[in-house]
Order: sequence, then structure tokens, then C-alpha cells
Amino acid sequence: MKLEKLLRPKSIAVLGANDRNGFGKSTCSNLLKSSIAGHVYFVNPKRTEVLGKTCYPSITDLPEQVDMCILILNKTLIPSALEDMAAHGCKAAVIYASGYSEVGDKASEEVLQKLCMKLDIAAMGVNCAGYINHLDGISAFGMLVENQSVKGTVAIISQSGKICLNMTQIDYMHFSYLISSGNSTCIRIEDYLEYLVEDNDTSVIGLYMEGIKDPVKFQHVLKRAALLRKPIVIMKVGRTEKGSALAASHTGSLSGSDQAFDAVMKKFGVIRVDDIEELVQMCHLFSTLKHLPSPAGISAMCLSGGETGVCADSGTLLGLEYPEFTSDTAQKLKELLPGYATVANPLDMSATLAHDGEKYALAIQTILEDPNIGMVLCGQTILPEHKPEDVINPMSDGMVLAAQMSQKPIAVMNFFNASRDDKIRRKLEDAGVGILPATGYGFKLIKYLIDFSGYSPSLHTLELAIPDTPKIRDRLALSEHDSKMELVKYNIPVPKEAVLSSLSELKVFAEEVEYPVAAKIASPDILHKSDIGGVKLNIQNKKDLMSAYMAILQNATLHNPEARIDGVLVQPMLPKGIEVIIGVNNDPQFGPMLLCGLGGIFVEIFKDVSLYPAPLSKQEALEMIQSLKGYQLLNGYRGNPEYDIDALADFMVKVAAYAAENKNSLHELDINPVFVYEKGRGVAVADALIIKTKESN
Amino acid sequence: MKLEKLLRPKSIAVLGANDRNGFGKSTCSNLLKSSIAGHVYFVNPKRTEVLGKTCYPSITDLPEQVDMCILILNKTLIPSALEDMAAHGCKAAVIYASGYSEVGDKASEEVLQKLCMKLDIAAMGVNCAGYINHLDGISAFGMLVENQSVKGTVAIISQSGKICLNMTQIDYMHFSYLISSGNSTCIRIEDYLEYLVEDNDTSVIGLYMEGIKDPVKFQHVLKRAALLRKPIVIMKVGRTEKGSALAASHTGSLSGSDQAFDAVMKKFGVIRVDDIEELVQMCHLFSTLKHLPSPAGISAMCLSGGETGVCADSGTLLGLEYPEFTSDTAQKLKELLPGYATVANPLDMSATLAHDGEKYALAIQTILEDPNIGMVLCGQTILPEHKPEDVINPMSDGMVLAAQMSQKPIAVMNFFNASRDDKIRRKLEDAGVGILPATGYGFKLIKYLIDFSGYSPSLHTLELAIPDTPKIRDRLALSEHDSKMELVKYNIPVPKEAVLSSLSELKVFAEEVEYPVAAKIASPDILHKSDIGGVKLNIQNKKDLMSAYMAILQNATLHNPEARIDGVLVQPMLPKGIEVIIGVNNDPQFGPMLLCGLGGIFVEIFKDVSLYPAPLSKQEALEMIQSLKGYQLLNGYRGNPEYDIDALADFMVKVAAYAAENKNSLHELDINPVFVYEKGRGVAVADALIIKTKESN
Repeated sequence: MKLEKLLRPKSIAVLGANDRNGFGKSTCSNLLKSSIAGHVYFVNPKRTEVLGKTCYPSITDLPEQVDMCILILNKTLIPSALEDMAAHGCKAAVIYASGYSEVGDKASEEVLQKLCMKLDIAAMGVNCAGYINHLDGISAFGMLVENQSVKGTVAIISQSGKICLNMTQIDYMHFSYLISSGNSTCIRIEDYLEYLVEDNDTSVIGLYMEGIKDPVKFQHVLKRAALLRKPIVIMKVGRTEKGSALAASHTGSLSGSDQAFDAVMKKFGVIRVDDIEELVQMCHLFSTLKHLPSPAGISAMCLSGGETGVCADSGTLLGLEYPEFTSDTAQKLKELLPGYATVANPLDMSATLAHDGEKYALAIQTILEDPNIGMVLCGQTILPEHKPEDVINPMSDGMVLAAQMSQKPIAVMNFFNASRDDKIRRKLEDAGVGILPATGYGFKLIKYLIDFSGYSPSLHTLELAIPDTPKIRDRLALSEHDSKMELVKYNIPVPKEAVLSSLSELKVFAEEVEYPVAAKIASPDILHKSDIGGVKLNIQNKKDLMSAYMAILQNATLHNPEARIDGVLVQPMLPKGIEVIIGVNNDPQFGPMLLCGLGGIFVEIFKDVSLYPAPLSKQEALEMIQSLKGYQLLNGYRGNPEYDIDALADFMVKVAAYAAENKNSLHELDINPVFVYEKGRGVAVADALIIKTKESN
Repeated sequence: MKLEKLLRPKSIAVLGANDRNGFGKSTCSNLLKSSIAGHVYFVNPKRTEVLGKTCYPSITDLPEQVDMCILILNKTLIPSALEDMAAHGCKAAVIYASGYSEVGDKASEEVLQKLCMKLDIAAMGVNCAGYINHLDGISAFGMLVENQSVKGTVAIISQSGKICLNMTQIDYMHFSYLISSGNSTCIRIEDYLEYLVEDNDTSVIGLYMEGIKDPVKFQHVLKRAALLRKPIVIMKVGRTEKGSALAASHTGSLSGSDQAFDAVMKKFGVIRVDDIEELVQMCHLFSTLKHLPSPAGISAMCLSGGETGVCADSGTLLGLEYPEFTSDTAQKLKELLPGYATVANPLDMSATLAHDGEKYALAIQTILEDPNIGMVLCGQTILPEHKPEDVINPMSDGMVLAAQMSQKPIAVMNFFNASRDDKIRRKLEDAGVGILPATGYGFKLIKYLIDFSGYSPSLHTLELAIPDTPKIRDRLALSEHDSKMELVKYNIPVPKEAVLSSLSELKVFAEEVEYPVAAKIASPDILHKSDIGGVKLNIQNKKDLMSAYMAILQNATLHNPEARIDGVLVQPMLPKGIEVIIGVNNDPQFGPMLLCGLGGIFVEIFKDVSLYPAPLSKQEALEMIQSLKGYQLLNGYRGNPEYDIDALADFMVKVAAYAAENKNSLHELDINPVFVYEKGRGVAVADALIIKTKESN
């Protein structure tokens, strides 16, 4: 495995080794402190020694064949160095050099990428800062690493080297790997991800990324992580990218690529966080807790009413649930708490218990035993060099004790941010008790955790319909009728309609269609159909349809004898139902995304839509519908009838399957509206527009 | 001024002085370290000395008359101690004792309150932890204060003593006062607030509170602070209080008292924050910055594309604006930045400038000189003992230099939370450069700051219509017609309608009314009016109205000869317009709140409403309308006409004035709907319901 040689080398050569301030000195110093220092070799034809260690003139002079090379070389020297490496039999490299696509020189980067492929070299970079492997104690890193002894199970992949370096300075973080991927020229984020998902020394993976290059591989890795239940936490910028949302149709305007990325994360149960602090803290929380919260209900126990109120507000506003205690739990708590305390969830337990670790542990345990509670948050701000100790000591003792006795997680909810007393922190974290940042972040982390815990890979279709690499294509909009006929071809139910061009055809159709119907002249040359008597509405029976047909054709010929006439379009006049929009937008990276929303102001003003990658299961379709605010209107709102949500979900599954099957040719689909009728009466497509792509010449 | 004696005493007696661990020892130790230690006296009949200092048997034995007493006494001993104090001529007290209303004993607390009033003693507490006055170096505080030397301009009033104590441990905070108000039995939060608003040593006031007791005083103090432009930052719990939102009508269900509190904060320009961390950080930011941002546009300058993206996303999602640079600004920046950098706002300035403090200062200054930019955020994470220093030193030099040259504020946007290098922090903050917490909090603080800066007291009606203390009252619902007549009495336009009980009345009315009209039997005894022929719709002229009148009366008499007949209600058939709901809910503390929202799902599903305290100016009414998402529908949405927003605002001002005038008798008003017509065509009340209160017997 090539990444093994890169990330866990037994021997390393530094090409261009030097002791100048910057990447040279930092890299060499870091490596001299590494566990494999005896198998680290410096190579530089212009030096005999660097930092007191012998320098070899070239890679061919080394006493052993090395697993990996770090190239501290100018851009122009990289290709020949890679050739030398290949000749020497070394298949892994870290390339710091910059000046490639990040400053506009894409050509050099492409050349380099092809060269690595040709030579079969696994190269990290370009424009990267290297990596730190805390498992083996190897910092192949371009900035001085002060603290190499923070071995843990968090792996970070970052497109920014600076962020990797900053992370090493967060004293409570414990890493397996910190990887600065740079431009991901050769080894891409999805390759590192694949390696780390399978790595038993890594329990959680954090990604700081701007984008991915290989969606197919990305999909496979995400699926694998979902099945293994290994958490991936992603911070990706671009939520508000200017100009990305200016597409023509509803679907286009509501499902820019960032929303598509979001939807993909949801499908695979990946946690997408909003900033770097959340990325760090979420990874840390996963690496600390020994259990996941289940069920989803939480409790919070605080020493004061105010802090309890903060927990109630902050948690509830994020959609977290504080279930009422069972009478059994309540009774036990009453016995533990002072008489004036009110037993409720969240719990203002007053300060009394905070002085008695064993009693406090018992209270935590009592709540954790409640069948509706999956996690307890202990409200208490841990301060730097926390004093006085008469509260924090018994409290932390109690939490440790409770953590030892329970299979459900416990975490401390802090009300201020501060550096936390290191002694207290270590005592708690060693016992698996999480230490959360102040409530604004703290409750968001708990929400992510609960969502992750509640995600079940078996309830999701863990696949995408990723289109083949797009070529430059033209777009082709189908007419309403042609769009509907395309849907019919894929067994998507559309009310029977037809373009009829002879009386005999009409006679057959007139027997089958459901009345009332509308009839319209079908001609690409007649635009204002009503003005020339080309439209008849509300036709009640076969006889009237026949005369309408004749009249329409006569009127058309009369007014525009030159027009091409395809016939007369006859379609049923649908009864009104709840108007729903079902759309598909084909994301260039992740393929067709199904969109669903209620018509009118729901979509247009409130952007109340749900987006999910095709294909999808019926369960996923139902979740999409239920996630809409407008769901209330479908579900017996204010004594209204219930509508046929089941039929709508079936319909969505079929549309998604159609979209997935046509991932390379479907540009956009807009079924607007679909009428949803009362429960048991199904749905009906009232209008549809398909835009296809076709290769241009 | 009584609070002066309490908060800035020249001499203090500790009644019940002792050296037992807890409030006794802590208070005495704190005071012995105070600047007025020579005028601190311990009183305890059972001791001759405490902590090496003489103990007097009683307050009458003291060598001087003291300004203030701290009572470390059990609840039962408080009344006699207060009497002794009064006899001694001491008018200020800190009372730690607990066991009052916080554990259900309201009676003892009322007795104590009355006693303090009778004796004219300004008492802090009960159930409080005292205060720390950093201006004079006096900690009249029940918990050991380690760090007394953090004099600054932030005043904190907190209902929780624990939060006060925790705040003293945040090393970068600088306070004028930290006040633990406890139960606010005698001196209330609004009293401290009044003192601090006028205090020249305090530049910003932070409140941690659960509620206020005297809304009239609260209002006056908020008005005074608004006019002085002194920032007040409030953290108040209770955003999601269970069961508070179950009122009957729309208005009731949408304007619970927490929303009313929110609306009051908005009117007076108070910043309401969401958690304690925000409270601390916001106060600190105000005390650090030397200028307010104006105009509202911001810029962010980062060293990497990723961090720039985080700033773009986080800021934009909160509604902050990054205006495009003027061509002049852009040109100057191009000259300062490396060739490959793209000049845009927010700005990825690359790392080059970070090594050159003077050039960096020039770049900051260039952006601050842009007429559309009010503030610059410098993206850089300051770490604990920040290393390496080759970037942070020139960057911080540059910020300091730029701050010295500009009248607009600068702040550092951090991407991780960590304790910040103290040397760097002090250097920046001394120069007035703000240091923000990680982006999740950081951008919220900037939003608060921009909102505060943009608030103009002259554009707001700085008054509330606070009702007199409510008595137990019955409710009385007026009929639709009576409700409308009530509005007419207050010059609120209502389409002409009348209950007519004679043909001569009818003849006059029939000349004046606008047709078409509807006519209905007016009788409290006839419920199903249509069923007995008691309703005629769409009456087009006088003649038809006369016959309808006769027919309706005949039908009524025929079907129900016993019924009381008030006459026939004749009202115009209004043309349909955009349906708007205007409501009033009378908050028991803050008086009538005007509610406005678009009808139907806007209010019912999306809770798209705006709430504001009466009375209100036209400007405020317009802001209420514009803050609705549904505003788009009124304002020429998708080629629709523009509607008469101006008339709607006039209408709202009148309704608010009516509500303010009737603050003691109006329980609730629901005008649902008001039809809003196209621009220039006004509004019309279609239905109204007034619920009044009347004193019960």
C-alpha cells in the first residue's frame, strides 16, 4: 500500500536538506527528533552536513533504500528529483514546492501529476506543509513542531498547512495523523480519507477542505465509513458563494452545488460543521466519549436556575429534546435532592449535590438509567487553575464515578470559554467524560452527536448517480407534452393525454380519457393559441370533444394557413390538489439531486425545500417530505384532510430512479405542480419540463 | 445618593464577622486587602478578633459611623441587625442570607423589604454574593477574590453570584463593578442599572438576569442609556419557556412575554445576547474598541483562501455586508499585494503582507478609508504563547499602527478558541484593537456591534405604554361590529357600516354607503342567520337594499318571534386585497405590543410576524412591515403591483396609539384581516375583535 510508505515510513531522505530558517531547518529539526532518526538521511550536493548530521551528495549515495523522500526543492528541480527517486526505488514523496495552480500555473501542476503517475510515486502536495504522524512519532512537517507527544485517535486532513500547525498548539487535542494535503495534485483528499477510514488507530477523521476531485472515490469512502460507523467531520467553505445561485428554474436557483454537497453529507451521515472551532471540538469530543448517546433525549443538570435556563433555551432552540423524567427517575431524584429543589428536565439540582461526589454520581446515574435519556450534560464552567476546589473536585469525582458505571455518555457543559484546568480536564477526559466549549458551540456539538448517533446506514441508499466526466454540451428543452411522455416511458404516472392528428385516433382516445378535458392546437408555429380559437376548456363528453377538435383545427387553418399543425393536444382538466414541486438538478460532481417543496410562496419566498441525492428509498422520500415546514399542510393541518403523502413518496422514488438512470443526459427536470390529493387518491402531474443535454458538435 | 454609600463606601462594618471557610472568611479576607482596609470594622459579640483584627461587640461600639454594613448573619438575625444599623445612622447593607423566595418563603422576603423601606436602608440581596468595586479596590464579596487588580470600564450586574465569581477569573476582563444582585429584594436590577448608566467610570453594562420588577423605571433607564449611547448588553433566559405560548388567538399565541421583552430591547437599542459567553465577550469588545463601526459595511483580510471563505460564509449568513471596494481602494490594494492575489472583499491577502508590519498597516488603512467600509477584521488565530513570532509580531505591529491612524475600528477574527498569548493581547487591546473569539461567536458579536452602531435613538419612540399594576380582571369580548365602532371612535378608519333599526335611518345610510353591500340580521338571539333568511349578500343599490332590509326583518320575526332584534347590520362587500393581520397583545409588564404579519400560512406556519411595543412612529411601523419575509408580496413581487405600504403603516401607527391610550383596559385586539390595496388605494378593515378587561367584583 503506497500511502503506508508515505505516512509510516521506516526511513526518510530529505532532498535539499538545509538549515535555513523556514521549511528547511524546521523539517530537518523535526526529523532529528523523530523515532526513526537513525534512518533519516539528508541529501544536498552543496553541503557536507546539516544541523550536525552528514549530508549525502545524492540519493544514490545513501546507505539504504529509503521509503520516502521529502523534497525541499524549488519547483524547477522537482521533476528530476522525482526521476532520481524512482531510479532509487523510492515510491513516496512530500513536495512542499509552491507556485503551481494556486497562483495560476495549472500547466506545471498537470505535468507534475502525470510524471508522478508515470513513475508510480505517491506524492503529498504540492504547496503543502507535510504531515505529522503521532502514532510513530514522525514529523515530516515544514514548520517546527514543539509538541510531538500528543498521540491519540483524531486524524486531520487539511488543505491548509497553517491550520495543521495551529492544531498542534491546542494542548488538549490528541492526534493519530495531521495531514496538510496542499493542492492534492497527486494524492487527493479522498485517498487520505480512504486510508484513514480503514486505519484502526484512527477513531474520527476531520477534514478541512475546499472541494474534492474524485466524487466516485469520495462516495465509496463515505459509504465505507458509514458502514463502519466511523465519524467523519467536514468543514467546507462556500455556503454563500456569490453568483452560484442564479439559475433559471426553481430547481436551479434552489440547489446550487453547496446545497448538493450538504445533501450528500446527509445521505452518508457525515457531520458538516460550520467553522474550524467546531471541526476541532467535534473531533475531540468523538475521541473522548466512549459511548454514543441513545436514545436521542438528553438531560442537563446545573447548579443554578439561570444556567438551567440557558441549557433549556439553547438546547431546545437547536431541536434537542429534554424528555420528562419517568416517575421512577423523578422519585429517585427527589430522594437525592434537597426538599426545595424542583425535579424537572433540564434539572436545576441546586448546589448541594456539588459538594458530595458520590451522591452526585448517583444522581447522574439515576438520570442515565431513565429509558428516555441518552446522555447527561453536567453544567459547570471549568476555569483555568480552577479555584476554589471544593465544588469542582467532588463534581469531577462524581462524573468519573458515573462514567465508570454507565454505558451512556456524560459531558461537561461550560458556560464560558476559557482554558480549562489541565488537571481536571485530564481526569475527566481519561474517564471518557467530554468537555464541551461554551453553550453556543457546546449545544451544536451535542446536536451533531445526536444526529450521528441516530443515523442508520441501513435506512439510506448509500449510492449516488455520479455522471461520467462532463463534456461540453448543448441543452435541449422538451415541450410539456414531450416531457410528460418521457416520464411515462419510465413508468412515472402521468394523466393520460395525447396529441391527436386524425379523427380515428381521436375516437379511440375519446373513449379512454377521463372527462372533463381540455383541447389545444398543437403547433410550434401558433403562439397565442386562445386568440385564434385554438383552445377549448372543460369539455364534458365525447361528443363535445369531437366538435371541439373540428373547431380548433378549422380555426387554426383559417387564421394561419402556413402553420405546421401536429394535431390537437387533449388532456384532462385535473381537479385541484395541494400543489407540490418536484424537481431534479444534475450536480456536475454528485449527479441528480431531487428537490421537493410545496408550490407558491413556500418555495418562492420561504425557500422551504428539501434536497437529496438520487437514487432514494421510500423512507428517504418520506423524510424529505416530513422535513418541510409545509408538511403540516399535507398532514391534516387545522382539521384539513390528510393528503396522500404515501403516493407522493412513491412518485418521488420513481422520479429519482429516472434521474439516476439518465444521469448523463438529464440536465434539469421541473414537475410543477404535482397535485397531491386526499389520502388514498394519489397524485397527478399537472405540468412538467425536462431539459436534456446533448453533446454539441 | 444611596447607592453611592453602598457601592463606594469610605468605611465598612462586617456584622457577624468570622473566619469560617465560606462567606465569612472570604469576605473578611477580601476586605483586609481592600484600599479602605483602615476603615473596615469587624463586629461579632462572640469574638474578640477575626483574622488578627479586633472584633467589636456591636455596631454602636465602632470608632466611626460607617457607610455600609455587610451582614454575614442567619436569616433570623437580619431584622434586628437592620434596626441596629439604622440607629447607628448607616443606610446601606449587603445581605448574603438565603432561604427566602428562592426556596418558597416569599413572606419573610416581603417583611424584609418593607423593613428596609421603613428604615430607608439600601440593601443588596438577599441571597446575593455582594459586589466587587474595582474602581476603588473594594471586594464586598462572599467568595475569595484572587485578582483584585483588573480595573476597567465594564460593569456587570448578575442575578447569579457564581457568574460574578467566574468572571473575575477571566484574565482579560477589566471591570468597574461586578454586582451580584441576588433576589433584588430591595435594590433591584433597574436601580443598579440607573446608577451605572450615569456612572462615568463605566462604559458598558452587562446584565445577567431572569426578569425585572419595575418596568416603569426600567423603561426610563433604557431611554436614558439610549440617549447617552451607552451600550447595555443583556443575557436573559426564558426564550423557550414551556407553556408560555398557549394563548387563544393568533396574537396571543405569537407574542408571549419573551417576545415582548425582545421587542422592548429592540426599541431601546439594547443588545440581547444568547448566552453567557456572548455577554462577557460583547462587553469586553465594547470596552476595548475606541470607535463604533460606521457605515455598516465590513471587510475581512485573511492570510489564506480557506479562512477568507469562512469569513465570507459566516458573515454573510448573519446578514453582514461585505461591500465591493471602490476602484480607488482596489487600485491601492493591488499595488500593495503580490501580483497573484485577487483583490476582493473579503480579501485573501496571502501571507506576504503578514511579514511586513508597515505594509500591512497600509493595507488595513487603505480599506478603512473606503467610504463603504466601517470596520476591518484581521483574520488570524492568536495562540497561547504564540510561536513562531515571525508572522504574529509584524501583523500585530501593523494593526496597532493602523489603529493609531484611523477613526474606524479594527478587530482580530480568530478561527480557533484558545487562551491568547497575553503579550500580544495586551499590545493589541491597549491600542484599541478588539480580539474576537472563534468565528461562531466572533461574527455574532460583530453583528451586535453593527446593529448597535446603526441604532439611532431619534428614530425611535422611546416610550412604552406600561399598564398600571394589574388587578384581577374579567375579560369582555366585543362583537365584530362593536369592535369596529370602538376603532372608529379612535379615528381608525373602518369601512362605513351600521346597524339600522328604522326605515328612516336606513334611507339616510343607503345614500352614503358604497355598494355592493351585505345585510345581516343583528340579534344576539339568532345564531344561524343564513338558515332563516337573515343574510343578503351583494346588494347593488339603494332600492335592493330597502327590499333586503324588509325581507330580513320579516324572515327574522317569522322564524323567531321571541328574539331580540337590534336591527339590520349593513356593511360594504370589500374588494379583496392582500390580507394582513394586525394584532395587539397587552403584555402585563411592558404594555401593548403591536403585531403585524401577512395572513394565512405566513403567520400560521412560518410565524412570519413582527412585534413592537406601542406607541410607534411611522418609521417604526415601516420597519416592522419591511422586516417580514412576506414584505416581498406587498412590494411588487414578481411583477405584481406594489401595495399601499404607506397606508398600512399609517394604520398601524393609529392602532398602536389606540392601544397605548387603552393600556389598562385593552386585553387583546385582532384585526384579521386588513385588506391592503394597490398603492394609493389604502387599506380596509374586514374583521376585528377586541377583548377588553374589566375589573371583576
